[in-house]
Amino acid sequence: MAPEIHRAMDAPLADGLLLTDLYQLAMLSAYAAHDMTEIAVFELFVRRLPPTRGFLMAAGLEQLVRFLETMRLSEDELAWLRGLGEFAPRFLDQLADLRFTGDLDAMPEGTVFFADEPILRVTAPLPQAQLIETRLINLVHFQTVIASKAARMVLAAPGRQLVDFGLRRAHGAEAGLLAARASYLAGFDGSATVLAHRAFGIPMFGTMAHAFVQAHESERTALERFARARPRALTLLIDTYDTERAAALVGRLAPRLAAEGITVAAVRIDSGDLGDHARRVRAILDDAGQRQIRIFASGGLDETSLKTLCETGAPIDGFGVGTSLATSADAPALDCAYKLQEYAGRARRKRSEGKATWPGPKQVWRRNSSEGRIAGDTVALLGEAASGEPLMRPAMRAGRRVGDFPTLGQARAHAARSLTRLPEPLRRLEPGEVQVVISRGIRDLADALDRAADSADAR
Amino acid sequence: MAPEIHRAMDAPLADGLLLTDLYQLAMLSAYAAHDMTEIAVFELFVRRLPPTRGFLMAAGLEQLVRFLETMRLSEDELAWLRGLGEFAPRFLDQLADLRFTGDLDAMPEGTVFFADEPILRVTAPLPQAQLIETRLINLVHFQTVIASKAARMVLAAPGRQLVDFGLRRAHGAEAGLLAARASYLAGFDGSATVLAHRAFGIPMFGTMAHAFVQAHESERTALERFARARPRALTLLIDTYDTERAAALVGRLAPRLAAEGITVAAVRIDSGDLGDHARRVRAILDDAGQRQIRIFASGGLDETSLKTLCETGAPIDGFGVGTSLATSADAPALDCAYKLQEYAGRARRKRSEGKATWPGPKQVWRRNSSEGRIAGDTVALLGEAASGEPLMRPAMRAGRRVGDFPTLGQARAHAARSLTRLPEPLRRLEPGEVQVVISRGIRDLADALDRAADSADAR
Repeated sequence: MAPEIHRAMDAPLADGLLLTDLYQLAMLSAYAAHDMTEIAVFELFVRRLPPTRGFLMAAGLEQLVRFLETMRLSEDELAWLRGLGEFAPRFLDQLADLRFTGDLDAMPEGTVFFADEPILRVTAPLPQAQLIETRLINLVHFQTVIASKAARMVLAAPGRQLVDFGLRRAHGAEAGLLAARASYLAGFDGSATVLAHRAFGIPMFGTMAHAFVQAHESERTALERFARARPRALTLLIDTYDTERAAALVGRLAPRLAAEGITVAAVRIDSGDLGDHARRVRAILDDAGQRQIRIFASGGLDETSLKTLCETGAPIDGFGVGTSLATSADAPALDCAYKLQEYAGRARRKRSEGKATWPGPKQVWRRNSSEGRIAGDTVALLGEAASGEPLMRPAMRAGRRVGDFPTLGQARAHAARSLTRLPEPLRRLEPGEVQVVISRGIRDLADALDRAADSADAR
Repeated sequence: MAPEIHRAMDAPLADGLLLTDLYQLAMLSAYAAHDMTEIAVFELFVRRLPPTRGFLMAAGLEQLVRFLETMRLSEDELAWLRGLGEFAPRFLDQLADLRFTGDLDAMPEGTVFFADEPILRVTAPLPQAQLIETRLINLVHFQTVIASKAARMVLAAPGRQLVDFGLRRAHGAEAGLLAARASYLAGFDGSATVLAHRAFGIPMFGTMAHAFVQAHESERTALERFARARPRALTLLIDTYDTERAAALVGRLAPRLAAEGITVAAVRIDSGDLGDHARRVRAILDDAGQRQIRIFASGGLDETSLKTLCETGAPIDGFGVGTSLATSADAPALDCAYKLQEYAGRARRKRSEGKATWPGPKQVWRRNSSEGRIAGDTVALLGEAASGEPLMRPAMRAGRRVGDFPTLGQARAHAARSLTRLPEPLRRLEPGEVQVVISRGIRDLADALDRAADSADAR
C-alpha cells in the first residue's frame, strides 16, 4: 500500500462527503466503470457487547437522516477531487450527481438492543449504500456508545438529577455536542454545553469554577459576587479550599442573599469522598436552617460510584458527570459493522474468520413477558414468520424521511420506556443477558450460501 | 441546580464560542460586574498518567492557536444569547468585543511529557483566559490522547508502515479528522481519511472493502475489476472468504495485471490470526514469484498486538489501525486540568482534596543524559534558576502567533526526535518512569500560600 499523492490545502475542519475513507471513492469508481448500480442491502449491527455492557441503546438516527437527506459534493470539493488527478472525469461527474435516494429502516432512537441485531438497514443503489458507510458508522456508533453509557448512569442514580459535564474531555467539538444529545436522550436532565441548548433545545445547567474563587482574595467575596451576578439557578462551589468551612459560609450567606431576593439553589462538591462530604455539608446546611439548599456532586463519577453513593444513601440531589460519560471511558467503542447482506436480489455473506455475517435483509422481533419486560428477541429474514414486535421501522423512503419521525423529546420518552422493560438484573447493572435467537430462515440461507460457495470453489 | 430555560433552535453543528460550558459565561458576567480584568495565568497539566502510559506526547497546539486567533461571537450567536434573557445587555456588549489578546507559551507539538508538567501557559486578562478553558482543553486533550497512543504504536512497530483507519469509530467528525492529524504527527505514515489529506496534507491510503468482493459473483472478477479501476497504489483485500485461496488467486492474477501495466502493490488481511495468515500468504506469493507484493494487515490491532507480530517476525509490511487508535481505547481520557496559577500578580492555589495545584507561573526544564536520553525534568517557577532545556516556548504574544510556528511536518520531525530520546524501557513500552522534580521555589510558594490561607481562616 503506497501513499497517495501528498498535496496540502488549508481547508477548514468540516463535515461533508470528503469525511470518508479513500477506499469508498476507489470502490465507487470501479462500480461506475461496470455500471454496478443495482440495489444493495446493508445492515449495521454489533458483533459482541463490551464486557461491561448488558445492553445497548440505539442513538444517532436523526443526525444520520440529516446527513443522508443533504449529502452531496460541493463544487469546491469536486474541484479538489479533480485536482488530485486520481479519478476519471466521467466518474467524478457521476459523483457530482450522487444523492441518497434509498430507503432506511432503523430502530428508533432510545431502543434497547443486543448483539447480532441489525439496528438499521439501508436499501439503495450500491454506490450510494457503499459511500455512506464511513459517516453512517461514525454518527450512529458514537451516539449509541454514549447513550448506552448514559443509560447505565440513569439506572444507577434513580431520582437524581444528572447533568453532562463532558465537553472538555469529549473527543472534539462534535463529540461534545453529540454526547450532550445522546445522554439527554438516554435520560440525563441536561448539559453544561451552551451549544447543545441552542442546537437541540437540551436544558443547560451551570455552576462555577474553582478559578473564580481563587481569583478573589476571599471565598466569601467570591460566593457573594457570583450569587449577585447569577441570581437564577444559583449553585455555589464549596470545595476550593475547605468544603465544610465553605458550607458553613453558605449557611450564613444564604439568608442574607434571600433578603436580596437571591435563592441559593444548590452547593457543589467536586473533590474528596463525595458521600462523606455530602453528609457533613447536609448537616451543616440543615443546622443553618437551609434544608432547601440542594447538594450537587461532581468529580470523576461513573455509574459504579453513582450506584454506591445512591445505595449508601448519600444526601446528594444531583450529579455532574464528565469524562466517563463523554468518552464512555470503560467502553469507548463497539465492535460494530455495516455489512452487505444482499445485492441485486441475491443474499451475500462474508465468511472471514471470526467475522462471518448472517446473510439477507432482516428484522428484529421482540417478545415481552406478561409483566412487560423483554423476554427475548428473534432476528429473522424479512418476510419470515416471527412473533413479537418488529423493532426496525421505516425512517426514510426514496431518500426522504418518513412523516412521523420522532422529536428528541419523543425519543427520550421512548428511551425511558425501553429502560423500564429491561430484565431486572440488567436494570441493576448486574450480569445477565437477553436471548437473541437467529431464525431458522437465516441459518438455512447461510448454509445454502456456504454450500454454493464451496461447490463453486470445487469447480 | 435548576434547569435553565428550555428553548430549542435548529442550529447546525458548529464550532464557535458557544461551544463552551454555561459556567464560563456566568463567571464572565460576574467578572464584568466587578471589572475583574487583570492578568491571569492559567496552566494546563496532567495530574496522573493513565496506568498504561509511561509518557505522553503534546499535540493540538496548532488548532488551539487558530481558535484563539479567530475567536469571537458572531452577530447571530450574540442575538441568540440576548434572546435567552439570561445575561445583562451591558455584559453581552462586552462579550461582543471580546478577543484573545494574551500570551500563550506551550510545549511544541510532538514534545514528550510527564505528570505534573504544565504543557501550556495562558497569560491574559482574566475573562479571556477563563472563557477559553473549555475549548482549549477539548482541543489539546484529545489530540494529546491520540498522539500519545499513536506514539506507542510507532515504537511497537519499527520500520512498518502505519495507517490510521479510525474515522468510522472515532467520536464524531472532528475526532476522526484530528485523530488522523495527531497520529501522523506521532509518526504514522498517513490516514484513510480523505478530508485529512485535504485539510492537513496528510498522505492518504486506501484499499477495498469486503462488500466490494461480496457484490461480485466471483472473487476473481472483483479483484480484477478493482485492479483495473485503481491501477495506482493497488492493495487487494484477500480475506472475504478464504485468505490463502485468495492469495493464490492474486499470485496468478498479478503477472497478467502486470502485462496490462497494473502493479499489485499489496494484499490486505483483516481477520483470523494475522501472523499465521501472513506467513502462509507470504509463502504463497513467493512461490508464485510475487516477492514484491507487500502484506498489509488490519483488524482489531493495538500496540500490544503490533509488538507481538513484529517481535515474532510476522512478514507484515504495514498495518491499518482503527478503533484502538482513534478512541485510544485503553485510555480515552487524561486526568488533565487547566488551573489558575496567578491573578493580578499574586500566586493562587487550589487546595481541594486530591486536586491541590502547584501555584505560580512555571517552566519545565529537561536534562539529558550523555547519550542524549531524557535524564529527568524539573518544574520550576518562571525566573527560578534551573538547569536543562526549557520545554515551553512562546507560541502567541498579544493574541498573535509567534513567527516561527512549526508546520505539521516540522512537528512530526520533532516528535520523532522526542521518541528517540525516551529512556529505553519507555521506548519498549515497559514499566518505567522519568523523574519529575517540583522545585524548591514552587514548594516554598505553596507552603507560604497555605500558611497565609490558614492564618486568614483563623481570623
